[in-house]
Amino acid sequence: MAATPEDFFNAAMLDQPRDTKASKVRSNVTNINVINFPGLNTLGISLARIDYGPLGVNTPHIHPRATELLTVLEGTLYLGFVTSNPNRLFSKIVKKGDVFVFPKAMIHFQMNLAHDKPAAALSSLSSQNPGVISIANAVFGSKPPISDDVLATAFQVEKDLIHWLQSQFWENNNY
Amino acid sequence: MAATPEDFFNAAMLDQPRDTKASKVRSNVTNINVINFPGLNTLGISLARIDYGPLGVNTPHIHPRATELLTVLEGTLYLGFVTSNPNRLFSKIVKKGDVFVFPKAMIHFQMNLAHDKPAAALSSLSSQNPGVISIANAVFGSKPPISDDVLATAFQVEKDLIHWLQSQFWENNNY
Amino acid sequence: MAATPEDFFNAAMLDQPRDTKASKVRSNVTNINVINFPGLNTLGISLARIDYGPLGVNTPHIHPRATELLTVLEGTLYLGFVTSNPNRLFSKIVKKGDVFVFPKAMIHFQMNLAHDKPAAALSSLSSQNPGVISIANAVFGSKPPISDDVLATAFQVEKDLIHWLQSQFWENNNY
Amino acid sequence: MAATPEDFFNAAMLDQPRDTKASKVRSNVTNINVINFPGLNTLGISLARIDYGPLGVNTPHIHPRATELLTVLEGTLYLGFVTSNPNRLFSKIVKKGDVFVFPKAMIHFQMNLAHDKPAAALSSLSSQNPGVISIANAVFGSKPPISDDVLATAFQVEKDLIHWLQSQFWENNNY
Amino acid sequence: MAATPEDFFNAAMLDQPRDTKASKVRSNVTNINVINFPGLNTLGISLARIDYGPLGVNTPHIHPRATELLTVLEGTLYLGFVTSNPNRLFSKIVKKGDVFVFPKAMIHFQMNLAHDKPAAALSSLSSQNPGVISIANAVFGSKPPISDDVLATAFQVEKDLIHWLQSQFWENNNY
Amino acid sequence: MAATPEDFFNAAMLDQPRDTKASKVRSNVTNINVINFPGLNTLGISLARIDYGPLGVNTPHIHPRATELLTVLEGTLYLGFVTSNPNRLFSKIVKKGDVFVFPKAMIHFQMNLAHDKPAAALSSLSSQNPGVISIANAVFGSKPPISDDVLATAFQVEKDLIHWLQSQFWENNNY
Repeated sequence: MAATPEDFFNAAMLDQPRDTKASKVRSNVTNINVINFPGLNTLGISLARIDYGPLGVNTPHIHPRATELLTVLEGTLYLGFVTSNPNRLFSKIVKKGDVFVFPKAMIHFQMNLAHDKPAAALSSLSSQNPGVISIANAVFGSKPPISDDVLATAFQVEKDLIHWLQSQFWENNNY
Repeated sequence: MAATPEDFFNAAMLDQPRDTKASKVRSNVTNINVINFPGLNTLGISLARIDYGPLGVNTPHIHPRATELLTVLEGTLYLGFVTSNPNRLFSKIVKKGDVFVFPKAMIHFQMNLAHDKPAAALSSLSSQNPGVISIANAVFGSKPPISDDVLATAFQVEKDLIHWLQSQFWENNNY
Repeated sequence: MAATPEDFFNAAMLDQPRDTKASKVRSNVTNINVINFPGLNTLGISLARIDYGPLGVNTPHIHPRATELLTVLEGTLYLGFVTSNPNRLFSKIVKKGDVFVFPKAMIHFQMNLAHDKPAAALSSLSSQNPGVISIANAVFGSKPPISDDVLATAFQVEKDLIHWLQSQFWENNNY
Repeated sequence: MAATPEDFFNAAMLDQPRDTKASKVRSNVTNINVINFPGLNTLGISLARIDYGPLGVNTPHIHPRATELLTVLEGTLYLGFVTSNPNRLFSKIVKKGDVFVFPKAMIHFQMNLAHDKPAAALSSLSSQNPGVISIANAVFGSKPPISDDVLATAFQVEKDLIHWLQSQFWENNNY
Repeated sequence: MAATPEDFFNAAMLDQPRDTKASKVRSNVTNINVINFPGLNTLGISLARIDYGPLGVNTPHIHPRATELLTVLEGTLYLGFVTSNPNRLFSKIVKKGDVFVFPKAMIHFQMNLAHDKPAAALSSLSSQNPGVISIANAVFGSKPPISDDVLATAFQVEKDLIHWLQSQFWENNNY
Repeated sequence: MAATPEDFFNAAMLDQPRDTKASKVRSNVTNINVINFPGLNTLGISLARIDYGPLGVNTPHIHPRATELLTVLEGTLYLGFVTSNPNRLFSKIVKKGDVFVFPKAMIHFQMNLAHDKPAAALSSLSSQNPGVISIANAVFGSKPPISDDVLATAFQVEKDLIHWLQSQFWENNNY
């Protein structure tokens, strides 16, 4: 079956704010990648729109296969990434129209600094299938869970706290 | 000298419309790539904001090293690309919030369909140094010029027409 | 089914001149790539023999996926390529036994300078599937055609001239 | 200066157990990569020996640029990795002589299951400079620290707990 | 069918010595690569355990798609590789715990220097499918054989010697 | 210093036969690669002209970094390559104008079948720096030499024969 112009098109509605209220962390990520836009296959690029409610956070996460280049669409963000060991933080407060880059596979995050209005960003990713590993979810919410011996040692805390964290993230992940 | 957060940041003002009136083709491309944002080096991604005046055209061109993923920020665009031989055109009319992808090294273009208002787009490119070859400029405006024998044969026209086209594009390229 | 020596062999007759008289531009390109020699798949290389009649032209074109390394087999050629913006022309007159390289995805061309005898070249390409975009054909002969608004603006000419160019190339492309 | 056989050699003493008692998590990783073995440059491979004391843990971490292929030299390990979203855990108990692979940039860990004796593993990594991001250290011990607003939201806990975790990891990182 | 932890695991018994007596060259290579461990596919890494009897030799060979990073598990080895022209030998005597690297596609070998005890090594390879070309076997034992005219000229010896070498290696290769 | 057209040009005289009489194996390879044509750097392609005297042989060798695509310019050649284990020979007799491909890093060779006239070929290689490892030279002529214990075991012959072969190739390599 021959390709058509529709194969290279996606009615992504990237101009439209998404709801951030259903999220415990007050943010919402809309991915436009090879999973919902198959025409990107082999082309090495994808997009994401990120909406932040007041004080909303796109929590620390990693894209294992992509660099991310973020542009602020609306509002003011505190954002940063942590380098491979030694763990230096590179952070910055950025405004509408600014650009910031998160190098491939580094832990990074963004937060809307406003108490009273939303923010939004558009990110370009250097892979059609960048993947995402949300740190807190992956560590405390994986199914099945990681052994509490490993996590108590890693975070240097009592197992009770690990169990409590796991119970929170476990219920989060309703997939 | 150690890296700082500023190395990963660019005050690109990508939210701000650029002037399109100084251009014969009524468009203006703002590139954010490794040339003006060195922190992108080796990271495999860059951006461009494209402003279109009424009926403005981003004329047929090629990025030799990148796929381009375009999002419409404002207005309605007619856009498309031509495949490697055989030369099929894949074109589409796209609106604010829509996404369209131009595969690596294909000839592509966009045009603002409105007679009375501007349009704008944001493009992600899968290289920190995508390059651009504007077809008409490269063929008729190169310095020094391509021989009129080659061009008259290629376009199957009289040399007088070639000379006239060259004189137009030659004065265009004041670099 | 096991591979045999035939899978790595192609009776390409690359020593034999091809007819250049059937072509409006007085040239003929014989490609030996993965399309007619499947054994090249994944191997990252292909060949082309180019025959030029008197004053024959291999018109300005692009290989989106390959560098081309040309050797002159017979005659004297004027050849060149145009860089990504700014559009500089790198051209040269080359003779039998000379070698010239056209970097990946740059617009390039060759022309036989002799009025009375043929020329020929052998080109190596750094992809098993280099692709080719002939500029004049892609811009004026695509099916369906690119809108005359876009082309008139791009080439800074009247639509009548665009229509006339399109009619010429349209009939060319009988596929 | 010409290369010598010494450039391709490293007296790594990979047969010798390392001390695990100085570590809060009772493990010790010995890296043999381009940083201490420059001859590996451009060669795309490196090694690590991992020693585990009784119940020692190689805590959850990521190699941003490498797949890791682990062989158990001594003892019995519980190990695993978490996939990109959705966050599935792939875990396994492995014994001396067994092999397990952690795909590129996935969060992974190992733990010595014995209460009374050490364990050891040898890992091959598919990069001369794989990098390592220890999750707990990167998130709670980065310098400067990540804002407590971001971390409290990400882990869904009070800021007091975040501060306590940060104080622990901050003193850990004496670099 | 969903992946399971078993897909990333191989009970390779890499701690156990293999028999070296059945081999004319007194060595035995155990490969753990994508052929017997499919989970390595696309991951860019594999392993081999090499056992050497007294004076055993892993004869000169090439991995066309991988660099090899060798660690001595037991004993003392004489090993080396020959560079691309000019043909310099980089050799070294290495002991238990030492590391040596053979760059991609260079001819290399190892030999157990002890007359009375075995040796062993563990090698990491930078491809899931490194391939191996044993020089003597490939040149004298290929099926069908390379013409004796080519081999007598290449090795500058009489055809009788070539035939004798071919008869030896031909019977070796019972596949 | 700005690039000029000369940087992309090489007066390689590839149309001219080279002397094959000074060579013990009656052949002569003229390489046009990044070493003598720096403009090829990063472009991923190079060339070689091969001249064969009567019964001349381009002896078994490997290009560690390139596939080779050969075209016969003159005469009739017997040529082939041996696959990675198992060692199958893919050979063929090819004539003027024919094309044959030797996949990356496989051992390959060519021989002029004529007793009384020369032959010639032009090869394209998929790297600007393909490298070459001539098997007999690398194994018997390296400097310093590979230990005779290794070679006697590898080729299953007496050390006297190894010494004799080494003496031949050692004097060959006057670099």
